[in-house]
Formats: sequence, structure tokens, C-alpha cells
Amino acid sequence: MTTEMIVREIKRKQSFLCIGLDVDLSKIPTHLLELSSPIFEFNKAIIDATHEFCVAYKPNIAFYEAYGQKGWEALGKTINYLNTQYPEIFTIADAKRGDIGNSSRMYAKAFFEDLGFDSVTVAPYMGRDSVEPFLEFKDKHSILLALTSNRGACDFQTLESKEVSLFETVIKTSKNWKNSQQLMYVVGATKAEYFKKIRQLLPNSFLLVPGVGAQGGSLEEVCKYGLNAEVGLLVNSSRSILYASNGLDFAEKAADTAKALQQKMQTFL
Amino acid sequence: MTTEMIVREIKRKQSFLCIGLDVDLSKIPTHLLELSSPIFEFNKAIIDATHEFCVAYKPNIAFYEAYGQKGWEALGKTINYLNTQYPEIFTIADAKRGDIGNSSRMYAKAFFEDLGFDSVTVAPYMGRDSVEPFLEFKDKHSILLALTSNRGACDFQTLESKEVSLFETVIKTSKNWKNSQQLMYVVGATKAEYFKKIRQLLPNSFLLVPGVGAQGGSLEEVCKYGLNAEVGLLVNSSRSILYASNGLDFAEKAADTAKALQQKMQTFL
Repeated sequence: MTTEMIVREIKRKQSFLCIGLDVDLSKIPTHLLELSSPIFEFNKAIIDATHEFCVAYKPNIAFYEAYGQKGWEALGKTINYLNTQYPEIFTIADAKRGDIGNSSRMYAKAFFEDLGFDSVTVAPYMGRDSVEPFLEFKDKHSILLALTSNRGACDFQTLESKEVSLFETVIKTSKNWKNSQQLMYVVGATKAEYFKKIRQLLPNSFLLVPGVGAQGGSLEEVCKYGLNAEVGLLVNSSRSILYASNGLDFAEKAADTAKALQQKMQTFL
Repeated sequence: MTTEMIVREIKRKQSFLCIGLDVDLSKIPTHLLELSSPIFEFNKAIIDATHEFCVAYKPNIAFYEAYGQKGWEALGKTINYLNTQYPEIFTIADAKRGDIGNSSRMYAKAFFEDLGFDSVTVAPYMGRDSVEPFLEFKDKHSILLALTSNRGACDFQTLESKEVSLFETVIKTSKNWKNSQQLMYVVGATKAEYFKKIRQLLPNSFLLVPGVGAQGGSLEEVCKYGLNAEVGLLVNSSRSILYASNGLDFAEKAADTAKALQQKMQTFL
């Protein structure tokens, strides 16, 4: 999927909402547990109920691997459902991968080719040759961890070398990598004070923003400093939508929460 | 598995060899491709032929994910075979994971509980709360990327902040994390000039060392600066053993290569 297609959908739906599909079997409605593929059935119901209000879905791969082969199967069914039923939706494998070149190429193959995701999140610690293999896939995007939303982000990411923070160096350096126009960046909503600087470094890139909602980030702040001419933001919400209710009305309540977020986003566009 | 058990095996076998199980279907003997689970059959033959000469096996998870559900199944069969047939062997899931706490906990569950690995490699970029969930599992080890063997290691890992390189800061900081006695560290053999400094920072920790062989690192240099009183090294080799031959004699040739490495290691002990 090209960036232009993402922007077109954002403008059409008046939403830059990304819904994280982080499915925890201990949190989903118990009536689904009797089905043969409860994770997929949950995702399918959530997707059918919320797709009008969002432009992207982001399964966090940890939640699927934790269920072994069954989890991997549910992930395959979910991405296949998205690609066939809602091909206009941007899909993100939140995998945070990164390894030496040959191994990164295998991960890229897994997520882009075998599963068919439009993008994957990538960790920068191992540098250029661990990320470029992901960038070799045409019309696929790699979303580099820049400044994450968790507390540990301050352990290393904000360390300064010659007055430049590590996350800034990651951003500046990555712009010189081959096919860097296929890069997006993870920037946590909880780090709103850095958004202005990041937008200066990356005026045109899309930023994937976790941390609004449960983690305490503010949508207003993110929009104030993060929006650009082509919107340039995908704001993620997971738990507040997925687990809005754990009764029979879970999909309906998820839709209500997603719709409320979309309506709030519309006021900033 | 406790560290004492690893040390005991190293002394008994006079080897600190770790064999990387990075199975590429395009490189394995073609007669295996007709079997129902070629990746597992290849691994089983390699393990049976080489287990006397090594103390650890390290499947790189990228190579399994690239084959989707079948790959995941082969990974499960491989770790199960190791745990039942050779329980004295230390097993490493080379996954390079790291995510916000809840997701890291899911990855830890996947590799430690569901699959039953003794250890997993972890990326440090997201800091303390992305690593500590892995350290909560008793008698399981987390192997933190410190200084990797690839060229891109110099993009960020060797950057200095107040005259301290990022990888040094990662090492120093991680020593204060909860259950840090369960940490080991990845240090590439290609970075032998840093080994002395790393051993000063980590006199007692085990170091997992990739990069000897195909990537050009020297076993002599690694041993000179890396060995400690309890050996403290696991030196990995993958391709030179796995693909020593692609004929019917692949397992025999793999054993020859592993044995030669073990004999070389013995001279340093």
C-alpha cells in the first residue's frame, strides 16, 4: 500500500485511528472461548464493528506467539480477513524485529510475503544492515522505534551524545538508509514534549503513536505538534476499544469507543 | 537450567560451542525436502550428530517464522526433541524480542513456558520495563544484545555519551535491573577489541558470541580476553556446521566440523 492510499483513506474517513489487536484470551467475552478459533472470531467481530472509524489495524505479534501454533494460525486468518474484506485498511505487524541482515530478510519475508502485512515495526539497535532488508520490499513500510511510550524509553533513547539524544540520532541516521522513504516512526504519545523536535526532523514522515488512553498520552498535544499537511499521524488505541465490554455487546461497545475517538480526531483535521 | 549446570557441561564436554539452527530450506540436502517436516528432520539429524561436541543449540526464530505455521511447528518439534532427548543441553531462542511490559511478558511466556527454551535473546532499546518481564522466570536466562557482530553495530551501539559507549551504558544499566543475575550478553566476535573492557564490566556473566567463522571473528582473540574462571563463553557457529555438506553425508560432515571446533576450544580450557 502506498502512502498516498493511506492519506486518501484518512481524509475519506476523517480518522487517523489505528486499532491494536492485542488479544488476551483472559479478557475476551467467555462465550467466544467455546469456538474453534476464539482469537480470530474476536478479531473478526471487532474489525466488522470498527472498520468505518479507523484506517489501520495493528496486531501485536507477542499476543499471538504466546498461544503457539494456534496463535500463529489466528494471526494468519486475521490478516487474510483484513486483506480480502477490507483491502483499503493499512495493516501493521507490531513485531519490533531486528537482526543481522540475513535474519531480518527472513522476518521481512514472514510478515510481508507469507502473511501479507503492509508494514512491520522494527527495532533500531542493530543499525543499518538490520533494517535495510525490510526496506527492500516495494510498497511495504517499516516503522522504526524512535521514542517509545514506556518508562524504559528514558533508559537509553533519551541519552545524549554530543547534545543529541539517541532517538534523534536514530531518526537522522535512518534517513540516509536505502529506500528510507518507506520508513515511518514509532513516537509515544506520552512523550509529547518531544513531538515538536521530531516533526522538525521528519516533516513528511508518518508517525505511529501509541500511548493515548490507558498510558496517559494526550490526543490534543499529539495533534498540536504532530499533524502535518498530509496528516502524518496514525494514533493507536488497543485496550480501551477491545475491552470496552466483555459481554455479548463487546463489538458494539468497541464500535462506540472507536467512533468517539474518530469524532474527536475529526475536530483536528 | 542454572548457570552451574551450564558450566558443568562445558567442563565435562571440554566445549563451549553453541550451534545455531538457522535452517534455510534452499540450503539443506534435497532428499530431506520429500519428508513431511524437512526442517525438523534436518535439525534432528544435526543434533544427533553434533550433541557430543556442543553445549547449546540456538534456533534463530526468523528462519522458522519465515515458513509460517509449518515453521512454528518445526520449532516446537525441535525444542521438544532437545528437551526430551538431551536435557543437559542449554537452549537459546534467538528471537531478539523487546516490547512494552505486557507484550514482553507474552513473548517470555511463548519462549519459556509454551516452547520450553532455557533462554531468549532480548533487544535493549526500550529499556528496563521491556526486559524485566523476561527476568521474572526462575532458572531462565535472558541474553541482552550488547555489542552485536554486524556492521550496523557501529551505527548506534558504539556512540558515546559522556565518553561512555551506548553498549557500555546498556551493560552498566542492566546490571541494576531486577533479577539481573539471569542476564547474559551478546557480544560479537568481530568486536574483539572491546572484549577486554566488556570483561571488566561483566567479570562473571556469560557472553554469547556470534561471528566466529563466516563473519570473520577470531576464536583466539575471543578466548584471550573473554574467558573467565567459569569459562563464561558460549561461542556460536551456524552455517559452517549446518552446511558443511549438502549431500547424504551432511550430518557426518557437520559432526566433523563441530568436533574440530570442540578440539580447538579444548586447547583454551
